[in-house]
Amino acid sequence: MLETQYLGYAAGILTTLAFLPQAFRIIRTRQTRDISLLWALAMNTGIILWLLYGIAKNDLPMIGANSVSLVLLMIILYCKIRYK
Amino acid sequence: MLETQYLGYAAGILTTLAFLPQAFRIIRTRQTRDISLLWALAMNTGIILWLLYGIAKNDLPMIGANSVSLVLLMIILYCKIRYK
Repeated sequence: MLETQYLGYAAGILTTLAFLPQAFRIIRTRQTRDISLLWALAMNTGIILWLLYGIAKNDLPMIGANSVSLVLLMIILYCKIRYK
Repeated sequence: MLETQYLGYAAGILTTLAFLPQAFRIIRTRQTRDISLLWALAMNTGIILWLLYGIAKNDLPMIGANSVSLVLLMIILYCKIRYK
């Protein structure tokens, strides 16, 4: 069903771009105290697995969305480790 | 392929349970300054759409994972609004 497909695209775009304001915020403030290190580590690992899953299934939207998420989450993790 | 399926499960479990330490942290500290409100809003909206997508596709693992994520993200959003 076409509507279901659009629902999936909208969901993917939202949960991917959501990390943009979070990354910008901690780059700007250099404050990451309230961010959980365990959250950042688990999200990075999880998104790497989602990316591999997308590659294994040859699912282009999944590869695209998870690549963008991974870059943003790596920035967040780097900031979390760099700025206490 | 069975291995691909396990990859998907591992990815889903990681990116769902990742929100647990983040929720615990802000419940314990009552500090949410470094969390982006826009991130929390976009994630909640996005996960609601993923949940609807899972329901539309009758995909039980997707419904399960996104239900757990949504509860944790609603707690995070509530804390973000409640504690400045």
